[in-house]
Parts: sequence; C-alpha cells; structure tokens
Amino acid sequence: MRVIVAGGDGFCGWPTALHLSRRGYHVVLVDNLYRRKIDQELGVPSLTPILSIEERLKAWEELTGKVIPFYNMDLSTDYDEFVELIKREKPDAIVDFAKIRSAPYSMKTSKHKIETVRNNLGSAQVILAAIVDSGMDIHLVHLGTMGVYGYACPAGVIPEGYLDIFVKSPTDELLPWKILYPASPGSVYHLTKCQEALMFQFYNKCHKIRITDLHQGIVWGTNTAETTMDERLINRFDYDGDYGTVLNRFLVQAALDIDLTVYGTGGQKRAFIHVQDTARCIEIALQDPPKSPEEGVKIFNQVTEAYEVAELAELISRFTGASIAYLSNPRVEAAQNDLVVINQQFLDRGLKPITLEEGLMEEVLSVVKKYKERVVTSAIPPSTKWRKELPEPVKLTEKKAEIVDKDLHLTELKHNHETLISNKHAVC
Amino acid sequence: MRVIVAGGDGFCGWPTALHLSRRGYHVVLVDNLYRRKIDQELGVPSLTPILSIEERLKAWEELTGKVIPFYNMDLSTDYDEFVELIKREKPDAIVDFAKIRSAPYSMKTSKHKIETVRNNLGSAQVILAAIVDSGMDIHLVHLGTMGVYGYACPAGVIPEGYLDIFVKSPTDELLPWKILYPASPGSVYHLTKCQEALMFQFYNKCHKIRITDLHQGIVWGTNTAETTMDERLINRFDYDGDYGTVLNRFLVQAALDIDLTVYGTGGQKRAFIHVQDTARCIEIALQDPPKSPEEGVKIFNQVTEAYEVAELAELISRFTGASIAYLSNPRVEAAQNDLVVINQQFLDRGLKPITLEEGLMEEVLSVVKKYKERVVTSAIPPSTKWRKELPEPVKLTEKKAEIVDKDLHLTELKHNHETLISNKHAVC
Repeated sequence: MRVIVAGGDGFCGWPTALHLSRRGYHVVLVDNLYRRKIDQELGVPSLTPILSIEERLKAWEELTGKVIPFYNMDLSTDYDEFVELIKREKPDAIVDFAKIRSAPYSMKTSKHKIETVRNNLGSAQVILAAIVDSGMDIHLVHLGTMGVYGYACPAGVIPEGYLDIFVKSPTDELLPWKILYPASPGSVYHLTKCQEALMFQFYNKCHKIRITDLHQGIVWGTNTAETTMDERLINRFDYDGDYGTVLNRFLVQAALDIDLTVYGTGGQKRAFIHVQDTARCIEIALQDPPKSPEEGVKIFNQVTEAYEVAELAELISRFTGASIAYLSNPRVEAAQNDLVVINQQFLDRGLKPITLEEGLMEEVLSVVKKYKERVVTSAIPPSTKWRKELPEPVKLTEKKAEIVDKDLHLTELKHNHETLISNKHAVC
Repeated sequence: MRVIVAGGDGFCGWPTALHLSRRGYHVVLVDNLYRRKIDQELGVPSLTPILSIEERLKAWEELTGKVIPFYNMDLSTDYDEFVELIKREKPDAIVDFAKIRSAPYSMKTSKHKIETVRNNLGSAQVILAAIVDSGMDIHLVHLGTMGVYGYACPAGVIPEGYLDIFVKSPTDELLPWKILYPASPGSVYHLTKCQEALMFQFYNKCHKIRITDLHQGIVWGTNTAETTMDERLINRFDYDGDYGTVLNRFLVQAALDIDLTVYGTGGQKRAFIHVQDTARCIEIALQDPPKSPEEGVKIFNQVTEAYEVAELAELISRFTGASIAYLSNPRVEAAQNDLVVINQQFLDRGLKPITLEEGLMEEVLSVVKKYKERVVTSAIPPSTKWRKELPEPVKLTEKKAEIVDKDLHLTELKHNHETLISNKHAVC
C-alpha cells in the first residue's frame, strides 16, 4: 500500500511513518517542519536531540534499505504542488498529522488562535480538495481528538463519533436520528478538530471521499520499536507547558525530582494512548478503510485508558517518589468530569493496548535522565492562560507523595486495563 | 448605539448600514471591497450601476448630514488594524457581513473552496479574537444561513438554532439534552457557516462574548427605503449563475422575456426574506442582545416565507407571463424537501414581514428593465457544477406559463403569509 504521511516529521507522524515503512508500506513523507519552527519560537527544543529530517531518513535507509521520499511542503498553502505530488505518487491513502496540535499553544495569544485556525483548516481543506481534483479514490485517515466530545454526555458513555438520539415530532412521537456527536471544544485547537469533522462530513457526502477520523486521546511515551533502532531515529519529546502532554510532563518532573504539578482539582479525567499504539492504530485504520463512501465517515476512538489527572500524578508519585503540587488552573475547563469512552472498534480489530506499565514509564524516565542536561526547567510550567484575566497559577495545597508501593500500583493499573477490555462499553 | 458594519459595501451590508445610520446609530463601515473584485473575476458587474463606496458615503452625507466613516480593511488578515479600530471607535456592537456568501462560487473550483474557507473562517476568527483583546463588552451580530440546517429534520420542524433531544442512558432511561442543531451543509459556503457556529459557541463559553447568530433565508429584492432616496445610493443587484439568488434571477429572466430556469425537479423548498427585512432584523437583533454571555449564543431564524423553487417560478410566471424551462441540476442536493421553519423570535419582537407582493416584485422588475442594457445574458445560467462529473445542465421538459391571474396569485400569497404568522410553529 502506498501512503502519504502528512506531518510525518512530528511526534506522532515520525514513528508512524517508520512503523508503516518497516511493515512494508511505501511511505511518502510531507512536512513543512512547522513544529521545529515552533521549537525556535518557544525557545524549547525537543528534550531528545532529534536530527534533521534528511538525516533521519538517511539513517532509516542505511538501517533498513527502505527509502522514504520527503517533500517540504506547506499543505495549508501549496495546493498545486500537493495535487502534483498525489498524481505522481498515486497513494492509496493519506494520513493527516499536518496540524498545530497543542491546546495551550492555540490559546497563547490572538495571533496563535488565528494561526491555528488558518493552518489546521487550511491544510484539511487543501488535502480534501486535492483528493477531489486528483480524481483518485484515496482513503483519508485523519487524527482527530477526544476533545471534540467536550468530556460531557448526559448518557454517561462517549460513543465512537456518532450519537443515537430521539427528537419529538409535532405530535409528540419520539423519532430516532443518528447524528455526529455534538461538538464541545475546550480550546481553539480542539475547535479546529470539530470544524474539520464537519468538513469531512461534507466532502464524504458531496464528493464521495472515503474518510476515517480517529479521535485520539492524550499521547504519552516517546519511542517505538522503530525509533529505538538507532539514536539517529529518536522521536521528539516535549515537556514544556505548551506542547508537553500531562503524563510526559509528570515523568519529566519525576525524573528531575521536582514537584508534579496538578492544575485545579486534578479531577479532569482524560483518555490516554501510548505513541506506539498510535502507529499501530493508524495501520489498523489503513487496513480497514470504509468500503464505500456511502458508509459515511468512519470514526474510531483511539484511546486505551483513562485517568483523572490527580490520580495519574498519584500513580507516578507512588512509582517514583516525586511530590505533587496543586496549582490553580490556567485553563477554562470543568473542575471534574467522568469519562467513559467506547473504543471497541480498535479492540475488535486486534489492538492490544499498551498501558501504563512500569517498563514503559521506566523507558520514558530513562530517556529523560539521559538528556536531562537539555531540559529548560523554566519552560515546564504552563505559560498560557485561557483568559488573560485568570490569575497566574499559584500553589493551592501541598500533598507529599506516599512511599512507592509497586505492587499496589500494578494491581490498580491492571484492574483499570481489564475493565477497559472486558466491557463492551469499554470503560476506560 | 455605535455599530461597526463589517462587509458594509455588500448586497446586505450596504442597505443595513444606511438603515441603521438613518435610524440614529453611529455606523462605522469596514470592507475590503472583495465583492467588487469578484465582479471583475466573474466578468459580471452588478446590474445596477453602483458607485464607489466613497461616492456612496459622500452622497449619504449630502442627503442626510450623517457621516459614516469607512475603513478599507481585510478582516481575514488585518488583525492589528482591526483591534486599533475597535479601541478607537468603541462600538457597542459589530455586525458581521464580511463573508464570501455564494454557494456556487464556493464550489467553482478547489481554489474557490480553499479561499472561501480562508476568508470566512479567518474573518470570523479575527473579529472574535479582536473583541477578546479589546477587553470591551461588544455584542457580535453575525449573518448565518438557513443552510446550516441542511433542510432535513426528522421532527419536521426546524427550530431556532438549538434542538431538544433525548439520549438513552446505559440503563435505557431517556435523558434530555439541548444541543446546537446538527449541521448538514450543502456547499463549502454553507460549511463555513456551520464551522463559524462552532466558533461562536466556543468564544461565548470560553471568552464570555455576547453573540447573536442570524440564520438568514435567501435574500431577494434590491432596494430599501434608504437606497431609493437617491440613485447614487442604489444597492447592488446580482443575477448571474454564481451570485444571483433564485428569486432575483427569475425576476431578471421575466423582465428580459427569457425562460425562468428551474434546475432539477424544482421541489427544493427554500426560505426567503426581502433585503429591507434583513436591515430591519439586524436592528431588532441589535436592540435585543443577549443580556449576559451565560445565556449562550442567541440564534434567530431570519426568514419570512418559504416556497418550492418550482412553485416560485410558477408564481412569477403567472404574474409576468414568462415561460419556465426545467433543466438538470448542477448541484448535489435533495430533489425534494419539505421545510417548516420557526421564525417566532423575530415576529415576537415586532417584525412585520415583507412578502412576495406584486408591488415589490414590480419594483425589482422595473429596476431590471431600467438597466437591462447592462445585463450579460450569458452569465445567467449556472457556471458551477457541484461535482465535475455532473453533466452540463440540459433542458428536461418545457412547461408554458399560464395566463397571469393576479387575484389568484395574491390570494395564494396572502394565505401563505397568514399561515406563517398565525402559527406558533411559523410554517413558512
């Protein structure tokens, strides 16, 4: 299968490109290296010393004999070039990671909001219009986010993309209707994902494009089977207040022996997935495209576990001995939410989730320890407030971590994981 | 009240700006004259000879003594300038007409799709972010479209913006939920309006902006009480396949004694509003803003009547003696749909709808006859197909118009109007 990986130099795109290449896919990589420019803007490079994309790909070829062509192309603007590329490379599928993907970054300033909307919707629009113009039947696999659901559903369970509802007729009959899950984004970044979802519905319906939208949880971990093959292939690792996702940030704090910082109550329950599973899920989605556009946009929840943020901090605290500091929340979000997500479609297709086992936490901790000289400690706290009138995060209380109890810790994790895979409703 | 009218040089923006100015509002007009550039691109100027915005505003000042400052500003890009303008002009409200507003234009080519998304979402984003940055409590009044509803609701009645639904809990209880009406756009233009609606939900919730979104029907007519005061104030009038809305196009065809062209079955039922009522509705919305952001985004359906396209052609045919030609449909849309729309909120606030009375049809016909030398006849048929593989529109059957029967015609119109205003569900 021939696959264009758009955004293939990024945190999820790079390991996915290698995973697919190793598994025999003909991979073409497209990226405008925007994420590396943001490193410069924020003054925080990846914790891991990532090589240039050219060096990375050269190393991959040396190690595996596999050639991944690279095109430096801005998909939010370079329409004609992308149409040409599609016609030349004749992909069976395009995987779209070509987005600004940080909620705090999208909320930094008005300019960041405007730029996130411009880049994310522009690139979605260019990719879709180019598929139409190519006249080819190309399967688009897009990375959405669990954030489109807004972590709130009166029914208590978040389904995969679509919701069965009932509406009252004028004569008070209850009529069934299947709708796209009502959007409730919590940042401009999440907003663009909800807006893209509408775009996919339209292009699927009007232009008969086959599309899979993967609503992914928060990605943790750093390396995969492929990126550990050689240090030149190492994946990027973000730990700063804007791009560092919560679990990775906790692991950095633990490795540096500084407080794990929990914002607000820590009662926000979020869904997670390991970066290796991201790559695996993409392959599953590629192998099982919608058979025809009439099936509609296929939507999977790409998550494996769910934890409250405070619960996660406590787990890592117990495992590592790190302390926890509770700070006021710079985001506008619910202080507490429950989260039950269905992820049955990936499980049915054979995904064996990687969960928060110590081995992988150890792996992340060892990466952090190895490169700890590179850490810009001042970049760890959040530098973005959702509203400028919100106070700077201040310490609320302090809660000293308990002594590490690895057995208890493992039991809890296993329990959580078993609930997830044994329940048809996939409580995670 | 101080009001910025964004897109104030356009078909709806110009008469609204004058209406508000005459009624004592301090109006500031912002436009990048994009619509005039599209005239050049398409090679079809307004049927009416509109003057430059500077000449128009000078004439207005001469006639009324009222000064409307004008800023040539592109709201999809000129962020800093717009923030400065807001801080200087201190508006109580911004009315946002600054959009590419044609469904066929948005579907012409991939570049038109990309540009419609860029311009429409970019300008919405700039306006919202600028309101946030100004720190002022500014009411945003935005022109949405009936097209966000997709003309399909199992409940049979299209409510105003929000839908009461029921979802099943895991224990099969039916739980109520009020959601934004599920989007189902029929063109990229309509898609952008659905995407803007999500933006409004987000900015209202996160940044506490007071917003009114007006889902407008198809606008017909040309002049208003203000634009008829002097020929220098004349409103633009579009009749081409891309920008001419169906009712105005029929009136042009009738005035030129050529066939009224109905695409497909003509069974598509659409909602209409006269351009004078557009201006009146905007004033009503300005006078009755959401009292607090906690009320949520206020959504009104800005429509007064509904007709099937074929029914409309038959009415105009009876009134004018014009023939009707049925052609194959270049759009991807349902051949037939029912449409019952609630428009109670505007009626409750005192709107007395202008309906398809002969006086106003006569007025449009007389405008067309006066400027008929300016008509580019070749521009009347649709030049845009929703999918390039669709055939060029061909004549399907011919149906000669009946003799004009003005009494019958009036009776039907009155009946339609009475149903609309006497029914709480506002059948239109």
